[in-house]
Amino acid sequence: MVDFTIQLEKIAQAVGILQEQNVDMWLTFVRETEHNADPALPLISPSNVTWHTALIITREGHKVAIAGRYEIVNFERMGIWDETIAYDQSIQPALIEVLDRLNPRQIAVNYSESDTAADGLSHGMYLTLQRYLAGKPYQLISAENILNPLRGRKTPGEIARIRAAVALTDDIINRITAYLKPGLTELEIANYIHAEYRKEGVVPSWDPGHCPTVSCGAETPVGHVSPSSKYVATTGELVRIDQGVILDHYISDIQRVWYLQPAGETEIPAPVQHAFDSVRAAILAAGAMLKPGVQGCVVDDASRKTIIDAGYPEYQHAVGHMIGRTVHDGATLLGPRWERYGKTPFGIVEAGNCFTLELGVHVPGYGLVSLEEDVVVTDTGYEWLGKPQTEIIVVPV
Amino acid sequence: MVDFTIQLEKIAQAVGILQEQNVDMWLTFVRETEHNADPALPLISPSNVTWHTALIITREGHKVAIAGRYEIVNFERMGIWDETIAYDQSIQPALIEVLDRLNPRQIAVNYSESDTAADGLSHGMYLTLQRYLAGKPYQLISAENILNPLRGRKTPGEIARIRAAVALTDDIINRITAYLKPGLTELEIANYIHAEYRKEGVVPSWDPGHCPTVSCGAETPVGHVSPSSKYVATTGELVRIDQGVILDHYISDIQRVWYLQPAGETEIPAPVQHAFDSVRAAILAAGAMLKPGVQGCVVDDASRKTIIDAGYPEYQHAVGHMIGRTVHDGATLLGPRWERYGKTPFGIVEAGNCFTLELGVHVPGYGLVSLEEDVVVTDTGYEWLGKPQTEIIVVPV
Repeated sequence: MVDFTIQLEKIAQAVGILQEQNVDMWLTFVRETEHNADPALPLISPSNVTWHTALIITREGHKVAIAGRYEIVNFERMGIWDETIAYDQSIQPALIEVLDRLNPRQIAVNYSESDTAADGLSHGMYLTLQRYLAGKPYQLISAENILNPLRGRKTPGEIARIRAAVALTDDIINRITAYLKPGLTELEIANYIHAEYRKEGVVPSWDPGHCPTVSCGAETPVGHVSPSSKYVATTGELVRIDQGVILDHYISDIQRVWYLQPAGETEIPAPVQHAFDSVRAAILAAGAMLKPGVQGCVVDDASRKTIIDAGYPEYQHAVGHMIGRTVHDGATLLGPRWERYGKTPFGIVEAGNCFTLELGVHVPGYGLVSLEEDVVVTDTGYEWLGKPQTEIIVVPV
Repeated sequence: MVDFTIQLEKIAQAVGILQEQNVDMWLTFVRETEHNADPALPLISPSNVTWHTALIITREGHKVAIAGRYEIVNFERMGIWDETIAYDQSIQPALIEVLDRLNPRQIAVNYSESDTAADGLSHGMYLTLQRYLAGKPYQLISAENILNPLRGRKTPGEIARIRAAVALTDDIINRITAYLKPGLTELEIANYIHAEYRKEGVVPSWDPGHCPTVSCGAETPVGHVSPSSKYVATTGELVRIDQGVILDHYISDIQRVWYLQPAGETEIPAPVQHAFDSVRAAILAAGAMLKPGVQGCVVDDASRKTIIDAGYPEYQHAVGHMIGRTVHDGATLLGPRWERYGKTPFGIVEAGNCFTLELGVHVPGYGLVSLEEDVVVTDTGYEWLGKPQTEIIVVPV
């Protein structure tokens, strides 16, 4: 039986947010969500849908699911929808009947230039909705102000699931430490990690083609790049792995750094140690700013200043993104005020938000020193969701 | 290393289709495709992307990939893009520079009311593009006339992959026959099938919550419904399973029917046999119409008439949908002329299209008789992609 406890929590939360935001109605309008997913749907529906489906939640707490005849049972079984309406040939008559009866001033729908997690409505579906509503008085508005808090304020059930995904990843990191040795290619290491995931019955948090991202040594390219057979774990150099797993629909996203220490060497080389200390200091500087009420960009400022002051180039990304059902799970970004990020760095951090804190620097001759930790925002600050990396993991060779 | 042979085939095919359709440029404009997937992207990109990415293909065969600095390597490695352009803070300057240089009359972008597989552009991304192009002379048009043939005309490499997925499913069907016995719940059967998938390193073709869909006996609800513990395989009744696997990025989608035959019984009960013969006749009637040049609805007409003439109610869906990378893989639908299907039933069947042929009837007291076969359209007709079910599978109990 499908477990929909999280969806029941989120639907209840949505009603409160509609009241808080003073919006009459939130409409999720989707079809064929296997390959045209709306990231909002899994928050309130336990399964994908094939045909046009409308999920309506009002500020008064009224909840209506309209779905194709063969799919309505999945919503009936949830027991939370006040009305479940099946249709055969077209959703239009039932949808219009419900809207005319509930008569909202505004209808928030899932589009947003800034917030990809609130941008699940396709342009084709928007045109369909416009066509259905021609001549009607309802005002279509962006649901970004509904979806950002709905996705961002993790319930206790959600936080427990993220912690479990992080714990499993920590365990796999220990296995990697035992496995690593000079001569392994990035691809071999990635294949080993995929095999461990399969043993655990989990899948990578993002595209298996580059989750894990494995970076061996100083020459490998940086970024969301597929592991290759060209670069090899090498004595006296670094291995950096960025990975995560999806466990029970919630993810982890963690980066760790290993040093393959030559026999006889007893200390981490100074440029590597300095890079590690600086990266960790920058993460702690971000953490020091992280609490409810602060703007995301202010958190990024702190880590960016720290790493620049330490003599390194600034990282070309945000220091933190939300995590949850996906690796980039919602709008508020702990990021710089760059056009490519839209409004997301100006979002306000809230209690229950789960973020990564991540950045890295390249150390010539050694490789990438890059860390990523997962945290949850508390009422007064933040907590680690796992055990943070406090020193370079040494693999004696 | 990521295999992108299929993407190279599809990009070459796209240039030919742009010429055929007399369209200057096709632009795929995406971001965060992990959770906001554009179904067109996997046809031409070997991996998902995080930041705004523009993939441009022109009628003259010029190919430009613009991507975030950390993701451009994945496109460089393909060796097919004439230009690969990395950006840091905003994609806008590079995108506008390329468009102004190539100066297309129309730019086809991925939205469509009818074709979900051509509707990957989110409304938020459409608004961003409109904002970028304000004051420019380019006309944005729907790419549905590009994407339908591009997705629909399967290359030999694609057909081979679908055949492999079907062959594995046929093999798993044999295992299910050996496993089935009275008393198993729908959920137990589904869990058994998931375990076989895991052994093979494959995942379900669609939502694991209802792939497989397992229907035991006469009382279980019909449709895209999660298997439950309430309904049980029962002597003298039917088990129907709808399932498929994703193997090497291509899928299968097959329904089979089993009869749990009581000891001493030697024939299939007459109403079940009549239902099976009628369903199979309707599938063959659809097949008899299936060839290049015919409209999808004409194929559906043939099976719909056959099943109604046999005395059963008409099925409330299409007799066939495209398959490929996904279970509903493109526009042309072998379906009725219903509003919910938009223009898709009026699409023209082409050689290389891969379809399901499927329908079912409910037999009171016994359960669901529903078949689904996978086929490829040839120059003159069609071929089965696996071994079709020609008789009810009998499980002696």
